[in-house]
Amino acid sequence: MTSGDFYDALETRAPAAREAALMAALAEQVANAKARSGWYAKLFKDVDPRAITSRAALARLPVTRKHDLIALMKENPPMGGLEAMPLGEASLIFTSPGPIFEYTTDRPDFYDAARALYAAGIRKGDIVHNSFSYHLTPGAWVMHSAARALGCAVIPGGVGNTEQQVQVMAQIKPVAYAGTPDFLKIMIETADKLGLSIASVKKALVGGGPLFPQLRAFYKERGIQCLQSFATAELGNIAHESPALEGLIVAESKIVEVLVPGTRDPVAEAGQVGELVVTTLNPDFPLVRFSTGDLTAVLPGPSPCGRTNMRIKGWMGRADQTTKVRGMFVHPEQIAEVVKRHPELKRARLVVDAEEGLDAPTFRCEAAASSPALADAVAKTFQAVCKVRAAVIFVEPGKLPNDGKLIEDVRKVA
Amino acid sequence: MTSGDFYDALETRAPAAREAALMAALAEQVANAKARSGWYAKLFKDVDPRAITSRAALARLPVTRKHDLIALMKENPPMGGLEAMPLGEASLIFTSPGPIFEYTTDRPDFYDAARALYAAGIRKGDIVHNSFSYHLTPGAWVMHSAARALGCAVIPGGVGNTEQQVQVMAQIKPVAYAGTPDFLKIMIETADKLGLSIASVKKALVGGGPLFPQLRAFYKERGIQCLQSFATAELGNIAHESPALEGLIVAESKIVEVLVPGTRDPVAEAGQVGELVVTTLNPDFPLVRFSTGDLTAVLPGPSPCGRTNMRIKGWMGRADQTTKVRGMFVHPEQIAEVVKRHPELKRARLVVDAEEGLDAPTFRCEAAASSPALADAVAKTFQAVCKVRAAVIFVEPGKLPNDGKLIEDVRKVA
Repeated sequence: MTSGDFYDALETRAPAAREAALMAALAEQVANAKARSGWYAKLFKDVDPRAITSRAALARLPVTRKHDLIALMKENPPMGGLEAMPLGEASLIFTSPGPIFEYTTDRPDFYDAARALYAAGIRKGDIVHNSFSYHLTPGAWVMHSAARALGCAVIPGGVGNTEQQVQVMAQIKPVAYAGTPDFLKIMIETADKLGLSIASVKKALVGGGPLFPQLRAFYKERGIQCLQSFATAELGNIAHESPALEGLIVAESKIVEVLVPGTRDPVAEAGQVGELVVTTLNPDFPLVRFSTGDLTAVLPGPSPCGRTNMRIKGWMGRADQTTKVRGMFVHPEQIAEVVKRHPELKRARLVVDAEEGLDAPTFRCEAAASSPALADAVAKTFQAVCKVRAAVIFVEPGKLPNDGKLIEDVRKVA
Repeated sequence: MTSGDFYDALETRAPAAREAALMAALAEQVANAKARSGWYAKLFKDVDPRAITSRAALARLPVTRKHDLIALMKENPPMGGLEAMPLGEASLIFTSPGPIFEYTTDRPDFYDAARALYAAGIRKGDIVHNSFSYHLTPGAWVMHSAARALGCAVIPGGVGNTEQQVQVMAQIKPVAYAGTPDFLKIMIETADKLGLSIASVKKALVGGGPLFPQLRAFYKERGIQCLQSFATAELGNIAHESPALEGLIVAESKIVEVLVPGTRDPVAEAGQVGELVVTTLNPDFPLVRFSTGDLTAVLPGPSPCGRTNMRIKGWMGRADQTTKVRGMFVHPEQIAEVVKRHPELKRARLVVDAEEGLDAPTFRCEAAASSPALADAVAKTFQAVCKVRAAVIFVEPGKLPNDGKLIEDVRKVA
């Protein structure tokens, strides 16, 4: 690999140098968030930003969860105080399901996605056909702003109008595609049917849904290298693949944590599945410990491609496991709280089943040594914390699945 | 009116100063077109750009007609030589019906539409809800690039999703709307139905279709000032209304001519309806004497708003009147040619009717004095030029309608 294989020198920094730079930037971003965002001014009222210079210090800060933004923005329009400026000073304003609202500014490559395009082989002067939607949501704009920052021309294809999109590609001959994983295949098949060729496309960066191995193989057969970006409406590109195809490499402007779902606590060790929580260093839309609501896990070790940043496994499910048991809401943070009160317990999981139409929750705990007295104490704690009773069952440490679930709902819908 | 009422000082220049500046820029643009565009290199092979410093000199240059681009671009992809750069150096690439292809570059306010927004009362820091389509066509991008150049934030509403567009407006409270004339009314009625308010909207700039007086009145009643821009995919904003509501004022980067349809000749006097032909001074996509295929007329005199540029009446129909008579295509330029060959004729018009299922064309000419000999001569010329016979009828000068039509097809479709 030559230096031309990397978007910038940040990607190949020594991990310790990156960590030092990120932690210095973190303190600044916490200060910036507190100063400019009404939400963080309140949330960080008692936080001294100068002290937030380590992952341990970061781990003590409260988490802002995506699903909470719906109520927050409804109560306090337009954006629940999360906006760092009057929205008239933004450049684009979006909405995504919830509704939740987001914005961008003129800051080039606002979403730090140019490095994802670059890793996918896309270069200055390339023409990129962008089949995400430009309407209302940030979808297309993540790739659009990245392609423009990289110096690419963009065909704003949007969604739908498949035949028209194929016709413009056949005429303009873009070398790159950005969009959902499956739509490029649909366009290739449509082109075949119309007797047109879109074989100019050699590189693709996809997102917004899973890229299944057989789909990646289909593209490879057609001479297209197809890589993935994991992006959200608020944060843009969080992590992306490289030609090494070993996990997703975190973007240089993001600090990624994986938490025990529903808590503010990082998982005990790399590899454990948990809630994806991101701090972005973009000063124009500061989000500190922002939970996207997704599950992921850290992939230990460095990428063989030469990029030295942390890698994650990509999307592993939804993090929000809140459910109703005998009429009471039970949240994953309550399960984590029960575990925290009993040092004998390693991990635990509430399994909610039903017997003869009645909810039958069991609290399964990993414990090195169990006893009837411990079971009794845990049951009492569970009832106190969750306002509902559950049977306590001990399992050997390591026996609960590593899937990030604190609550597993196995009730069948009648 | 104060100076704050104008986008820039160009708008209130003394007409002679503007004309001098435009003519100097014209020579430069002709040179630029010849140097950078393969199409104009060929078309202007024998043209000395330094000589094109007057409207009379401009009037001798050939016209490039929009409908000819379809074949041109098909034969010589990607853009028939009209592109002034490799398309990978563009910023956006579009298609519009035909198909015809267009592009933009990074040049701020590429389409000179910021002054149209400004005339509609829209200012830096305003939030603009943009309901044109961002997908494939330049529609939304004309207003988008203008709003961004002006320093406005944009909600990229796009087309469709009416309820979702209304919901984001109710939350974000944009002060301005850009889109088709009727869609804002549809959104207002949808908001009423949903119990939401989008009364934050006070200013609108519309295009892409006619703004009927009763629709303008509806908006006025709702406290919304609604003005029009006349824009095309290739040129962007050609002319726009001001609060004076007297015609559309030509954009400062455009040189507008009104031609006898199908010819390269300007109409004899201001006010006559003819083919809209535009030379843009944007160096990145040079178009010289580009016919949009529309009819318009110059509105004599200056606008009461203080803007001193030429005014036009807006869209008055399609310029392309080519039709088939007894199996032969007849083009408006052929009608103009017949008139040119007989100095006794002022204007003429071919009226194509049918009698008992057979085409019955009459060539109606304005002539100060008529004679059977002249009628005979004109009929012979007509047949020589048009390859088809027509009855010649004389009318008094000024009796033919001023609607830009050289061919009027009054045959009923069975």
